[in-house]
Amino acid sequence: MYYIGIDLGGTNIAAGIVDGNGTIINKGSVPTGRTRASEEIVKDMCLLVKNLINDAGIDQAEIHSIGIGSPGTPDRKNGVIIYNNNLGFRNVPIRKLLQEHFSLPVYLENDANCAAIAECVAGAAKNEPYVVVITIGTGIGGGVIIDNKLYTGFNGAGGELGHVVIQMDGEECTCGRKGCWESYSSATALIRQTVRAAAENPQSLINSMVEEDLGRISARTAFDAARMGDETAKRVVDQYIEMLAEGLANMINIFQPNVVVLGGGVSKEGENLLAPLREKIKSRTYCSEGVENTRIEAARFGNDAGIIGAALVSKA
Amino acid sequence: MYYIGIDLGGTNIAAGIVDGNGTIINKGSVPTGRTRASEEIVKDMCLLVKNLINDAGIDQAEIHSIGIGSPGTPDRKNGVIIYNNNLGFRNVPIRKLLQEHFSLPVYLENDANCAAIAECVAGAAKNEPYVVVITIGTGIGGGVIIDNKLYTGFNGAGGELGHVVIQMDGEECTCGRKGCWESYSSATALIRQTVRAAAENPQSLINSMVEEDLGRISARTAFDAARMGDETAKRVVDQYIEMLAEGLANMINIFQPNVVVLGGGVSKEGENLLAPLREKIKSRTYCSEGVENTRIEAARFGNDAGIIGAALVSKA
Repeated sequence: MYYIGIDLGGTNIAAGIVDGNGTIINKGSVPTGRTRASEEIVKDMCLLVKNLINDAGIDQAEIHSIGIGSPGTPDRKNGVIIYNNNLGFRNVPIRKLLQEHFSLPVYLENDANCAAIAECVAGAAKNEPYVVVITIGTGIGGGVIIDNKLYTGFNGAGGELGHVVIQMDGEECTCGRKGCWESYSSATALIRQTVRAAAENPQSLINSMVEEDLGRISARTAFDAARMGDETAKRVVDQYIEMLAEGLANMINIFQPNVVVLGGGVSKEGENLLAPLREKIKSRTYCSEGVENTRIEAARFGNDAGIIGAALVSKA
Repeated sequence: MYYIGIDLGGTNIAAGIVDGNGTIINKGSVPTGRTRASEEIVKDMCLLVKNLINDAGIDQAEIHSIGIGSPGTPDRKNGVIIYNNNLGFRNVPIRKLLQEHFSLPVYLENDANCAAIAECVAGAAKNEPYVVVITIGTGIGGGVIIDNKLYTGFNGAGGELGHVVIQMDGEECTCGRKGCWESYSSATALIRQTVRAAAENPQSLINSMVEEDLGRISARTAFDAARMGDETAKRVVDQYIEMLAEGLANMINIFQPNVVVLGGGVSKEGENLLAPLREKIKSRTYCSEGVENTRIEAARFGNDAGIIGAALVSKA
């Protein structure tokens, strides 16, 4: 049997056909267009999945179920996304919408929780009992594993680790608060920081890299320009890692997990990101001497962790 | 049998003789004098306990064990306080030091964890599976209960909820970081905020209440002056509750516990504190509509929660 995993992101909808071992057989993505109505988004999601099934030459009878990883707060029982800030969702009956296109069981879980499940089953946190997974994308997602089980709080809405204020009265967050970690350390925030720095420093390489069109700056731009020696970009990257470290040290002081796993596109920077990050975290951890320390790792499945985890959720 | 519970605070050492039902038979406290050597502090601790036993007319043979609730990171197995910022402790062998005075088993636990145990066994969070207890004193302590069990992370050092930065590059914290929640919402922080406001507003009632001696300002002063209508004090209290709400909303977004219990002296303000706090938290919670909300309660055992919890720890 096969399992469809859908990772509904603020920027792209990614989906994959996953086999019983958690291996992706076929995958693809389309832009989310997150300012659109939820029905429109779901329509594109279904088209993407249908195309993947056709391309893989799989009979729909061989598909067991669909799992969706969505940012925000899921009502797992009823298959409804109660709330998400970046998609502007409130009570979107996603199971019902999908079942208008597929006569399959549909399971719903938070997207970062899906990534956490994938990394704990077969990835960077395999067999670890206490794990915090942070997904860096349009927002910051959090997945918490305690005693080998997903932690979601008494009402299923826990683990919103991106919505921890690290700067009172700071940057506006789309959740309505000011100064959330998400508004400093998401990919969206990194892009904003890069755009600001490029605008303030016309001589910076960042500007020529995007042919003076700041709208083309991505979350990779500052890292790329820094690698080429650009001082402005180095400063952007250093400050970004500093703020990421503040938030991660917070999570370590709270959870002291065996491992913190970083997912999302930014995690592809690997040791360029992780080495300075580990340094900055160490000096910020409440008690780092005399106890074993939390490991900081990149997600093994990178951006695919959400797809694999969503498929695994639908398997259970 | 009886159990000795000791709550080692940054300001006072409180201790009590507790019976098998968790009821305090006799209790007392002495100043910690936290800038002194750990041996000096432990000497006073032992004298306090001996006096309590004598006053209660209890034979030492009737005492089962001693439990110590200490701020910071405990090595439970070896009875050593690995680290505490406010006491300046590093690797203090507190069990060994106490056993020079008492031939009794000595158990060690984090102080806020002790408060959490007391409140969950018989207090404001009785029978609740997911609980966060915040103790507001010299610092901010955190005790986390998940699935009816104390959560301490993979290395026993978790739950340092006061050492979550809510203001990057903010107030210096004694842990070495800047902008920890503790440095805004502890009783020490409230005193500092009250002193600053009094100095800047010579006409404020705060000044006359302490006979112009700002060194006499306590964590109660601003609340007392606000009740009497003083505008400066009202502002101090309002801002203090605002910052407390920021930190508590963070904890709710992370844990979504059934209940958050507030302990320490400030929690005695009751609804004066809790009613505005609940309002400020509600607007800051990531998802407060469509899911059941966390209750915010004062510790039932107030400042005695640490003593009772430490005694309960030694009973197990």
